[in-house]
Amino acid sequence: MKLRLAFAGLGNVARELARILEERRLELGRRSIELTTTAIATANHGCVTCDRGIELIDAARLVERGGSLSELPGVVSHSEPFQLIERCNADVLFETSPLNATDGEPAISYIRGALARRMHVVTANKGPVAFAHKELRALASRFGVVFRFESAVMDGAPVFNLVDDCLPGVEVIGFEGILNSTTNLILSSMESGLDFGEALEKAQQLGVAEANPDFDIDGLDATMKTVALANVLMGSNLKPADVSTTGIRGINSAQLADAHREGFAIRLIARSTRTAGGVEALVAPERVGLNTLFGTATGTSNVLLLQTDLMGELALFEKDPGLRQTAYGLFSDLLRIAASC
Amino acid sequence: MKLRLAFAGLGNVARELARILEERRLELGRRSIELTTTAIATANHGCVTCDRGIELIDAARLVERGGSLSELPGVVSHSEPFQLIERCNADVLFETSPLNATDGEPAISYIRGALARRMHVVTANKGPVAFAHKELRALASRFGVVFRFESAVMDGAPVFNLVDDCLPGVEVIGFEGILNSTTNLILSSMESGLDFGEALEKAQQLGVAEANPDFDIDGLDATMKTVALANVLMGSNLKPADVSTTGIRGINSAQLADAHREGFAIRLIARSTRTAGGVEALVAPERVGLNTLFGTATGTSNVLLLQTDLMGELALFEKDPGLRQTAYGLFSDLLRIAASC
Repeated sequence: MKLRLAFAGLGNVARELARILEERRLELGRRSIELTTTAIATANHGCVTCDRGIELIDAARLVERGGSLSELPGVVSHSEPFQLIERCNADVLFETSPLNATDGEPAISYIRGALARRMHVVTANKGPVAFAHKELRALASRFGVVFRFESAVMDGAPVFNLVDDCLPGVEVIGFEGILNSTTNLILSSMESGLDFGEALEKAQQLGVAEANPDFDIDGLDATMKTVALANVLMGSNLKPADVSTTGIRGINSAQLADAHREGFAIRLIARSTRTAGGVEALVAPERVGLNTLFGTATGTSNVLLLQTDLMGELALFEKDPGLRQTAYGLFSDLLRIAASC
Repeated sequence: MKLRLAFAGLGNVARELARILEERRLELGRRSIELTTTAIATANHGCVTCDRGIELIDAARLVERGGSLSELPGVVSHSEPFQLIERCNADVLFETSPLNATDGEPAISYIRGALARRMHVVTANKGPVAFAHKELRALASRFGVVFRFESAVMDGAPVFNLVDDCLPGVEVIGFEGILNSTTNLILSSMESGLDFGEALEKAQQLGVAEANPDFDIDGLDATMKTVALANVLMGSNLKPADVSTTGIRGINSAQLADAHREGFAIRLIARSTRTAGGVEALVAPERVGLNTLFGTATGTSNVLLLQTDLMGELALFEKDPGLRQTAYGLFSDLLRIAASC
């Protein structure tokens, strides 16, 4: 099967996907999956198309060297990413543009445009899932394509697919989780004595925290993920603004040391519960016992504990994930699309 | 869709499934799934068929009262379970006969017979998976039916389906787990001061340990599950006798108290790794840190940590499961069969 791929964004995650696709060429061949990248749109490295195909790994390396995609052989340059997506005529769009936490744009428009042109869409972007999951899924269904977003929450750990495919007949009543790696790494480092500034600097040096880490530290990343999970797994209609959100800026080393002496860690916990009025969600730092599932989640680890009717409490624990795991989420979505075509 | 069900065994798990099917009548109706039980074979309560259908919940209650299935209205009694399975002409066989750890019989023969008569088979029995997974899966494939066994390991927690459906392209390099609830409950209870005998008695009172608990305590149950996991998830050809197995009989409260003082718990750990010569597996009690994933698994909780190539380390944690979760595994297998028909 032949699939033409388009990329909206060629940042860290998409470039790691490029490396996975390169490493797995033989395996893809064995699965009779033939991939051709025909369009790439970036904010800072140009927008190009090439019907005969762009060497994706070359494009990734070029971006890493700070070059322009227009340097690639045989490509046509475009000035506007949205038109490129509309006209690229690909089978699958990988949408990995930066998150906009205010309204999820322009990613939502890109995805809407692609679905309406009968492209499958895979995104690692929480925004479109948190703000427009129902609309985009309905649109995909109407045009006979799929909208996949496994890496939007907990990297490539299959949280959405686990419930969708592996827990038939089960109702998710609520969940609790540690969903943000940056704050978890900062809190873990502060437990070993660093102050907030040092811990943040360490997270930035490790490439986990962004240059501007406010979005993680103030809890908004966890909130977007919580909304995505609640809306997809529990059928709610939450918006990020509905979630009471407290970040970790107020936490200091002394509090962590006190907690530790009493047998507790502090973690940024996301929580969602079904209530009489619908679904309520909350993100806030909480004390958790050191010898509990959440207490053991150190470093960049993520955990999601599902509370269900028939299956009781079931947790998925992702140990110290990195970029590769997020990129794997995109790869797994691609393989599932290929399998269903 | 109409599915005729046959049952080989109507023990605790199958009777809990009967209760789930009763509770979910409306939901099954909404999914257009119409179930009719046409055959039940038990060791101590008779073997019966009824083409017009047996009320499964009535059969379950009758068995709980110690009655004979021949008392049910309109049934035909049979003297021999294997012939009943061969002749019952059902669409799905639920095989939940007691485990035989020596060779997996007679369950393997029941399943073989059913598959060859184009019945889908769902089992909660580790034996057939540990001893004959490859053969039975090949047989199912040859006759265009499926062989499902999600509840054979970690109750209904989707361990096999997680890897099969949600981790495409991922290779499982190894795993570590706590797979036996009885020994875990005994070790947890001993941590809080009970001696081995008292802890075992508590587990028996709670209905977790069998009247004859040797199979759990000596590690054989964990070994059967380890073989099932290794053979299915890692493609090995292990037999239970290939696994070095040590149970928890040698552990005493003093050792647990010592370990606890030093920040450790003792857990019965199952482990499988890929080696130059193939796959090696081991079951033995080990010291694990109190604030580790395995250390936090107390009571009947089970954990499976998968070591993978693309997804790093990913764990599934099942918190204090009971009979309902095992029965859910059968129910989820049934729903998947219905969805694929």
